[in-house]
Amino acid sequence: MTQSLSTVTDGQLVDFRDAIGDIPLTADPGIVRRRSRDFFWYSPILNQQLAGKTADLLVTPRDEADVIRVAAACARFGIPLTPRGAGTGNYGQAVPLAGGVLLDLSEMTKIEWHKPGVVRVEPGSVMADLDAALQPQGWELRMHPSTKRKATIGGFIAGGSGGVGSIGYGGLREPGNILAARIVTLENEPRVLELRGDAAQKINRAYGTTGIITSLEPPLAPAWPWIEMIVAFESFGEAMAFGYDAALADGIVKKLLSPIAWPLPSFFGEMRDACPEGQAVLIAMVAAPSLESFKALLGHRGAITLERQSSDRAGQVPLYEYTWNHTTLQMLKTDRGVTYLQCLFPHDDLLAKVAAMTNRFPGEIHGHCEFIRFGGRVTASALPVLHYTTPERLDEIIAIHEAGGVMVANPHVVTLEDGSRHKRADADQLGFKREVDPKGLLNPGKMRSFIPVSATPQG
Amino acid sequence: MTQSLSTVTDGQLVDFRDAIGDIPLTADPGIVRRRSRDFFWYSPILNQQLAGKTADLLVTPRDEADVIRVAAACARFGIPLTPRGAGTGNYGQAVPLAGGVLLDLSEMTKIEWHKPGVVRVEPGSVMADLDAALQPQGWELRMHPSTKRKATIGGFIAGGSGGVGSIGYGGLREPGNILAARIVTLENEPRVLELRGDAAQKINRAYGTTGIITSLEPPLAPAWPWIEMIVAFESFGEAMAFGYDAALADGIVKKLLSPIAWPLPSFFGEMRDACPEGQAVLIAMVAAPSLESFKALLGHRGAITLERQSSDRAGQVPLYEYTWNHTTLQMLKTDRGVTYLQCLFPHDDLLAKVAAMTNRFPGEIHGHCEFIRFGGRVTASALPVLHYTTPERLDEIIAIHEAGGVMVANPHVVTLEDGSRHKRADADQLGFKREVDPKGLLNPGKMRSFIPVSATPQG
Repeated sequence: MTQSLSTVTDGQLVDFRDAIGDIPLTADPGIVRRRSRDFFWYSPILNQQLAGKTADLLVTPRDEADVIRVAAACARFGIPLTPRGAGTGNYGQAVPLAGGVLLDLSEMTKIEWHKPGVVRVEPGSVMADLDAALQPQGWELRMHPSTKRKATIGGFIAGGSGGVGSIGYGGLREPGNILAARIVTLENEPRVLELRGDAAQKINRAYGTTGIITSLEPPLAPAWPWIEMIVAFESFGEAMAFGYDAALADGIVKKLLSPIAWPLPSFFGEMRDACPEGQAVLIAMVAAPSLESFKALLGHRGAITLERQSSDRAGQVPLYEYTWNHTTLQMLKTDRGVTYLQCLFPHDDLLAKVAAMTNRFPGEIHGHCEFIRFGGRVTASALPVLHYTTPERLDEIIAIHEAGGVMVANPHVVTLEDGSRHKRADADQLGFKREVDPKGLLNPGKMRSFIPVSATPQG
Repeated sequence: MTQSLSTVTDGQLVDFRDAIGDIPLTADPGIVRRRSRDFFWYSPILNQQLAGKTADLLVTPRDEADVIRVAAACARFGIPLTPRGAGTGNYGQAVPLAGGVLLDLSEMTKIEWHKPGVVRVEPGSVMADLDAALQPQGWELRMHPSTKRKATIGGFIAGGSGGVGSIGYGGLREPGNILAARIVTLENEPRVLELRGDAAQKINRAYGTTGIITSLEPPLAPAWPWIEMIVAFESFGEAMAFGYDAALADGIVKKLLSPIAWPLPSFFGEMRDACPEGQAVLIAMVAAPSLESFKALLGHRGAITLERQSSDRAGQVPLYEYTWNHTTLQMLKTDRGVTYLQCLFPHDDLLAKVAAMTNRFPGEIHGHCEFIRFGGRVTASALPVLHYTTPERLDEIIAIHEAGGVMVANPHVVTLEDGSRHKRADADQLGFKREVDPKGLLNPGKMRSFIPVSATPQG
């Protein structure tokens, strides 16, 4: 039953299945293999590295008690465990490298409680479902990825960093953007730990290596009626310049400002008619009461080619599904020869630095930025789309960006360290992992700085 | 009946009274003189310059029709007209320099309509009353001065620039912070003009020189339950450093961050017990759901000495009445020998620049900053309190600040130009004034760049 790449023996799996009783699971290789994947195929390098990686079993806990039982069994029998949301990431962050158990948390979707400005939820809730439950009461999640209609809140916090909404609130790492998390440890007798405030950062973008999240307390934003728009500009530079002005305009409430260079909009499928030939676009989400001010700021600098109420479920594709890493996806649907970078520009002299980097690779890289707040300053995250040739050229392009002061979170590597802007594991997270996963069984291989106390099975 | 300083004759006033019919007015010199003043006595220089300045008549319109009738009569008989809110300003901005009519708009308090995120109001509403009406529906004004419990929305927009709330939304000048205004022109046949978007900026901080505001459309903020706190620090530098970190923390929702150096808190009356001897304080307003994150960020850097729900009307003095220019007032109550500056620090290298300027005048100036957003960046407005000696020394201190890159909006001058950071009238406002007040009768003397077409009475 085990895959050739797995470190787990059939005997271990039999013991495990005996131990967990009636908790739903499947060993069907097709299902397990399919659910072990994510969108790592955006990267030609990861696509090779992660080919064939799969868990042995897919286990679907119904509640925290189930999670505790699974964690205890994995600890006892030395079986790797990789927690998992919807698998909408791009970094292979929840692809099991050593087989074992894939813990599918998507059935744990309870809203434990909700009060003004805060919600307490299980990790498996799809973010669009959460907003659908919260918005009638005047609240919504502060930020979400472009995969909101599929991605889970747990997967986002364990694997992501920010997204739509980060122009108002910054990323998940900013103080106040994760109020608390509850985790189950990977030990023979698992503990349940409540992590509040700074401590909650220990599970942020840790790929599930620092405990199994069973409950999350994200802060909320007041829900606005959002207007989504496509604005066309003569050039990417003009889309950037206006987007930056709008990003800096604190009187205009917005959730998304995404300047995208031609020819990327030519791949925008059903939005193609709203994307004039040869022009750059800015995709924006603006609160309805700020729309008039947004248009006054725009003046004649660009032309609004599409304007409508934004909705996650009106039978239309929300425009945020053309932004963040969905921009890359739109082109990949047609051209599998492209991939992307994930960059953070410094906030000072921003427009000049984006222009310099964009102009440096004509025809090879197509500009795509996302305005965000980072550390209290307006700056741009960038997900430029590039025509891939060789790993060496990709490394060279990354090196040129870094030499130019642009931080690159390399999306073509599988470890936390290599994929971070600082090329190292967060010290708190690394130390915390020793406490909660001493045997190194949680998503092994992703936090490569971690050396387990003992990785051998214990009775 | 006219005062010695007035330019208006008894004959003009008789004609005027005949023309306006039953619109309430008084010529009682005691009342008119008292209502012609504001808090310009904060400045020893203005206190001399404006001594004895008074209108001839106090007129109190009930609605826009009354305003039109008064404007027509003033135009026809060549009588100066100074519109007026509650008179809580500090710059003498609504003190009539040439007599005439003081137009008291404080009876025009109707809420014309309210929808999510926007309200349409007459100019005379006291801001605390507006919030009391809006908050039960989940909304509140985005920003208000420390005089919120007395000041009118019209006076704030015509005479102010920002205040409590500007750490989230910037000042009134930012795009989107004044959606629209309706004004009555000062002509024989007054026109009623709706100013939307950029055009609404023509009445922002124009001291009533560019038309009589009869209706305003401010955008709203979602109303949070605000927690107000006093946090004590060993030094002003530490209060600044933490306040700056909190200001930059986009995940923490806040409305006020005011670092104040000792000995200013020693003058804080009933708050004195919460202000430890010799220590600086930070006064803060934080949204209740962000309180835990605020405290986590604070850690052991400072000590919270007071924490309570903020309220405009709970029988307690709200803490914002110890911030902005109320900080100065608290000391002035005891020591009439002090006055203040109104500064804007550049956003780069902020803490070092504030420290340098604060340390330059030991014993002479006491540090007081207000964190705000300005042009999309976090920076500090500063209202340091200084021990006044001579006009020459005051000018010298201002010159030292300006040489150090700090912009000073001189609060010791009466004209718009001299009091602005750029020492000139806004070009749009100056041009607009020619259209709406060709005779230069609106608050004459305040926009000194303006030369009227004709200031002589016309039949």
